[in-house]
Amino acid sequence: MRFFKSDNTAAVCDEILQAIAEANAGAAVAYGEDRWSRRLDQVYGEFFGREVRVFAVSSGTAANSLALATLCPPWGTVLTHAEAHIERDECGAPEFFTGGAKLSLVTGAGAKVSAADLAARLHWFEPHVHGVQPRMLSITQSTERGAVYAPAEIAELAKIAHARGMRVHMDGARFANALVAQPVTAAELTWKAGVDVMSFGVIKNGGMNAEAVVFFDPALVADFEFRRKRAGQLFCKGRYASVQLLAYLESGIWRRNAERSNALAKRIAEAAPQYLSEPFATNQVFMNLGQPRIDALIAQGFGFYPWGPTGSGECRFVCSWDTPEDDVDALCAALQKLG
Amino acid sequence: MRFFKSDNTAAVCDEILQAIAEANAGAAVAYGEDRWSRRLDQVYGEFFGREVRVFAVSSGTAANSLALATLCPPWGTVLTHAEAHIERDECGAPEFFTGGAKLSLVTGAGAKVSAADLAARLHWFEPHVHGVQPRMLSITQSTERGAVYAPAEIAELAKIAHARGMRVHMDGARFANALVAQPVTAAELTWKAGVDVMSFGVIKNGGMNAEAVVFFDPALVADFEFRRKRAGQLFCKGRYASVQLLAYLESGIWRRNAERSNALAKRIAEAAPQYLSEPFATNQVFMNLGQPRIDALIAQGFGFYPWGPTGSGECRFVCSWDTPEDDVDALCAALQKLG
Amino acid sequence: MRFFKSDNTAAVCDEILQAIAEANAGAAVAYGEDRWSRRLDQVYGEFFGREVRVFAVSSGTAANSLALATLCPPWGTVLTHAEAHIERDECGAPEFFTGGAKLSLVTGAGAKVSAADLAARLHWFEPHVHGVQPRMLSITQSTERGAVYAPAEIAELAKIAHARGMRVHMDGARFANALVAQPVTAAELTWKAGVDVMSFGVIKNGGMNAEAVVFFDPALVADFEFRRKRAGQLFCKGRYASVQLLAYLESGIWRRNAERSNALAKRIAEAAPQYLSEPFATNQVFMNLGQPRIDALIAQGFGFYPWGPTGSGECRFVCSWDTPEDDVDALCAALQKLG
Amino acid sequence: MRFFKSDNTAAVCDEILQAIAEANAGAAVAYGEDRWSRRLDQVYGEFFGREVRVFAVSSGTAANSLALATLCPPWGTVLTHAEAHIERDECGAPEFFTGGAKLSLVTGAGAKVSAADLAARLHWFEPHVHGVQPRMLSITQSTERGAVYAPAEIAELAKIAHARGMRVHMDGARFANALVAQPVTAAELTWKAGVDVMSFGVIKNGGMNAEAVVFFDPALVADFEFRRKRAGQLFCKGRYASVQLLAYLESGIWRRNAERSNALAKRIAEAAPQYLSEPFATNQVFMNLGQPRIDALIAQGFGFYPWGPTGSGECRFVCSWDTPEDDVDALCAALQKLG
Repeated sequence: MRFFKSDNTAAVCDEILQAIAEANAGAAVAYGEDRWSRRLDQVYGEFFGREVRVFAVSSGTAANSLALATLCPPWGTVLTHAEAHIERDECGAPEFFTGGAKLSLVTGAGAKVSAADLAARLHWFEPHVHGVQPRMLSITQSTERGAVYAPAEIAELAKIAHARGMRVHMDGARFANALVAQPVTAAELTWKAGVDVMSFGVIKNGGMNAEAVVFFDPALVADFEFRRKRAGQLFCKGRYASVQLLAYLESGIWRRNAERSNALAKRIAEAAPQYLSEPFATNQVFMNLGQPRIDALIAQGFGFYPWGPTGSGECRFVCSWDTPEDDVDALCAALQKLG
Repeated sequence: MRFFKSDNTAAVCDEILQAIAEANAGAAVAYGEDRWSRRLDQVYGEFFGREVRVFAVSSGTAANSLALATLCPPWGTVLTHAEAHIERDECGAPEFFTGGAKLSLVTGAGAKVSAADLAARLHWFEPHVHGVQPRMLSITQSTERGAVYAPAEIAELAKIAHARGMRVHMDGARFANALVAQPVTAAELTWKAGVDVMSFGVIKNGGMNAEAVVFFDPALVADFEFRRKRAGQLFCKGRYASVQLLAYLESGIWRRNAERSNALAKRIAEAAPQYLSEPFATNQVFMNLGQPRIDALIAQGFGFYPWGPTGSGECRFVCSWDTPEDDVDALCAALQKLG
Repeated sequence: MRFFKSDNTAAVCDEILQAIAEANAGAAVAYGEDRWSRRLDQVYGEFFGREVRVFAVSSGTAANSLALATLCPPWGTVLTHAEAHIERDECGAPEFFTGGAKLSLVTGAGAKVSAADLAARLHWFEPHVHGVQPRMLSITQSTERGAVYAPAEIAELAKIAHARGMRVHMDGARFANALVAQPVTAAELTWKAGVDVMSFGVIKNGGMNAEAVVFFDPALVADFEFRRKRAGQLFCKGRYASVQLLAYLESGIWRRNAERSNALAKRIAEAAPQYLSEPFATNQVFMNLGQPRIDALIAQGFGFYPWGPTGSGECRFVCSWDTPEDDVDALCAALQKLG
Repeated sequence: MRFFKSDNTAAVCDEILQAIAEANAGAAVAYGEDRWSRRLDQVYGEFFGREVRVFAVSSGTAANSLALATLCPPWGTVLTHAEAHIERDECGAPEFFTGGAKLSLVTGAGAKVSAADLAARLHWFEPHVHGVQPRMLSITQSTERGAVYAPAEIAELAKIAHARGMRVHMDGARFANALVAQPVTAAELTWKAGVDVMSFGVIKNGGMNAEAVVFFDPALVADFEFRRKRAGQLFCKGRYASVQLLAYLESGIWRRNAERSNALAKRIAEAAPQYLSEPFATNQVFMNLGQPRIDALIAQGFGFYPWGPTGSGECRFVCSWDTPEDDVDALCAALQKLG
């Protein structure tokens, strides 16, 4: 099968495996006190151009949920897009980790939170004990529909959120894809635009099983470390997670892999632009093919997901760092031949 | 001030106070083993025309949350209207009691769940571990906008829910108002239409501080009693709660009080029908007066709540079992004089 | 049956019922904004001789759990006696309300926390993320075995707790019984000795269904009000709870009722001192009668609870504010006749 | 430094790394639907000699907590030893995952649950809503003090637990060490003795970052998979966890590594038997050296943990699969030279 299901079906990058092998020498202090874990703050601080606190966890869901639980009380609510991963694809993990905080949903094209809708939605919350209180905004970069936020767009949302006393979380499961898609720095796309904490994705872009939670203000870390331990996310052999996070930045694969997957996706988008249901931006391509064409592609051995509610006729193709060129060639050809 | 803020600003009915006084004689076994508590199942069973299990709690929020927590697992979701009390006015209590289950919102005129929208919303949930699973439907009778569901409407919703393996909860904080507004029986409006569990409201319609959770299938009670105890809702002097629930039905005040509050509200609605923003149905009247008229009424000493987001110009008048006739006369006159 | 099961089998004091009736006049703002609720801080402040913040809830379990949840994070632990009500008799309510904090158990005669054992137990907790962190000490006054803490004893415990950064909670379900048993003031027995927050019991000593949570430092209230609402413990007709708390202090029944129940219990203790398994102190009497004597008393129509694990041969007699003199006479006589 | 701190300071076994590298070829379906994950049930079924259901998670804490949460309701309690890892070293993770269930502590030499104490402790729980209900027994094999349970000992405990309607969990973080220390099969040491679910340890004995939860009765799996997802423990690139679990059994390292670490520890125990504070059994050695001798060893460059409360004078030496022979030689020599 030619796989376009997701970037999480990809293998692990050689650079990551190599770094793991190199770290595998002799004893190391357990539970995050090893020398790899101790370097995280510095290496990520350099990447982002400011002091940060960085912690490894084993999944994007854990990263998102722990970040939210640290900054949102149980009686708070997290404003987020109705199609956000934290709302649709984590089986209620944010509610579990926060002790029952609520997600309040906002709309916007391309799964991007609309500033106007955010402002309107916030009007519903009153500062009394009868209702949950807005405490966080969570945005996804790049979004669940492949779109990207520009720094100014993030800044606009963050301004609204901060004015209300809320903190801003970025789900950056595909952050590298969003970063290389724009002529901006990691700093401009995060803390300079008002992001307070982010889930920094590594796995989808070549990693194995470690993601990072990055706090842009050390004071916000609060009781994060207790919560992480309590969630079973503090690893005894912590070096094997941390070294992935280090190699991801230090080897440069964050950029190389993201550029490659974006470029491959662009070829797909350009092969059949008439079907695009979202403007092309990163490594995900959304098309309204209709069920007969979807069936035809499946019959030809292409693996991909239908999108939206059953029967919508929409589908999604995702390219990963290791999608074979040959598979992309085949898909482009197949798309062009569809009647 | 002439109070139309809510039916929960009302006093307690004499019949309830009298019943409390009568129960106040000598010792009684604690924690729900007293003879009043032991009669609940029978008295409510007769009211509803079938075997039921009934439990007293101290607030509508507790009733709703405990009912939901008993039937919805933490990884489940409760489908409900976007304006439902459990979503808007309980500070996340359902999420707290359920251990982090999610409320998924549906729309519909009059704060009634639309069957079409419910069906459409359910299409989004897939039977896999990535998303929360629909396990409950919660409807409010009468609704947060004063509307009532007819038995057939409930049955249609319940059919959709049950087909999906979901249970149906009714928030009946104002159930009596809905019941006397229709030529139907309590049975027809609940279990015969597919309701599995309900929060049976007493406080707003003359009670002091006891509501009932009514299970229409004893098998569904499951671990409710452990959850109630654990929530601080099992009262040591349980007789004082249970006797309210008994007197409410046995004295007939459920009907008398609801009929009176509905009738008073009808006079308000008919005094200025041009302003109605919702069709009149029970004891709540919604009007689009616009801010200047709202300000004018406030200046004349009427107490009521603006409704909707800030600046909507809508407001709500609620009549209770003890709203003075004179206050209604005054309000009707004032409404008719508005320019 | 002659009831010595518990003081929660008692009826409600006339003064409480009278106050409720007086409050039952006309409309009142809902949800704790009524004029009775607004007087709580002042009246309790005068009783305790300092600024306090006071909130009504519907049960002792709710009072304890909300107080603990406000001051103990989910990754914290509450040190308490192994026989404490919060450990033994609340079905895990503290764990529920705190989001899974732990109770860590300490021993001590008379169900009083031993300072030596507390200090020893605290040695086990290390300031790292692997273990829960001690954040609260909870003591019961009077204890589950009828004993009382003197101010100096509380101060010794509080000093240990505060030195460790912990807060001190007092479960005062029977606080009045402890207070009238000693020549001390309410202030000396609470905040002057280091208590930070208390559950102030009213129900067992003549109330109906309202207890108070009293914060001795307004800064500690933190998010208590959100947690109370979210727990279904903010009552729409709040006046009926608050007026009980007011009448309890203002009518003086707190003292009269506690003195009476203590005095009656003293007669029982003195009738058969050879059986006492705990020194007499308040309104609970513990005796090692052995099963045959227990059976004999039961056969004579006395109602009381065996105590300790099955087969221990110990039992408990509790006097309440309304225990008939005649019942006490009968019990004393029966005890003296036991072989 | 010569490391005897824990077996989790060890590196990863070559066989594990090799298996990861072999699995790293091309795309694989995400989220546990890959061909490695699909083989887990079969391979572990063969190891245990019966049908099992097996799930990968990223830490022992996660394994323990998810197993407990699946089988213990929030109002239940888990009986376990006072020194158990779930009580002492997981920062309240079981309480978090279960939604606030309680751990109830039992004693016993060698951190083994004493059957007599278990039975006695169970007497305290009554079948009513006031107290939490015993639902699980959790034992550790080998224990936190290096001891092992024989099959008959487990069977005795399991019989007590099952008679009470409880399920039996085994924390097998060091299961292999316990298994090779006795002439028994994996089946005899688990399900044949009454274990219902276990946390099967891989990491400490040569793995990288995957542990297994093994259900010996498929019916007990219940909603485990929803809970795992919701806890951030369902990995998108699941093959890298599952392949570790497969290689651990199929390569035979489970036995080889455990035999080696036990043998090295035995040398330490035999070098200075006069100091042993626990009988030698597996790969952990406990000695009462007193602080001066502890300091002397630290000064010589040995790394190990003091044990028990501050100032106890006890310490622990742990050997892992890769502890250098040379380090053991040095430690034995140093111990023999202590005055």
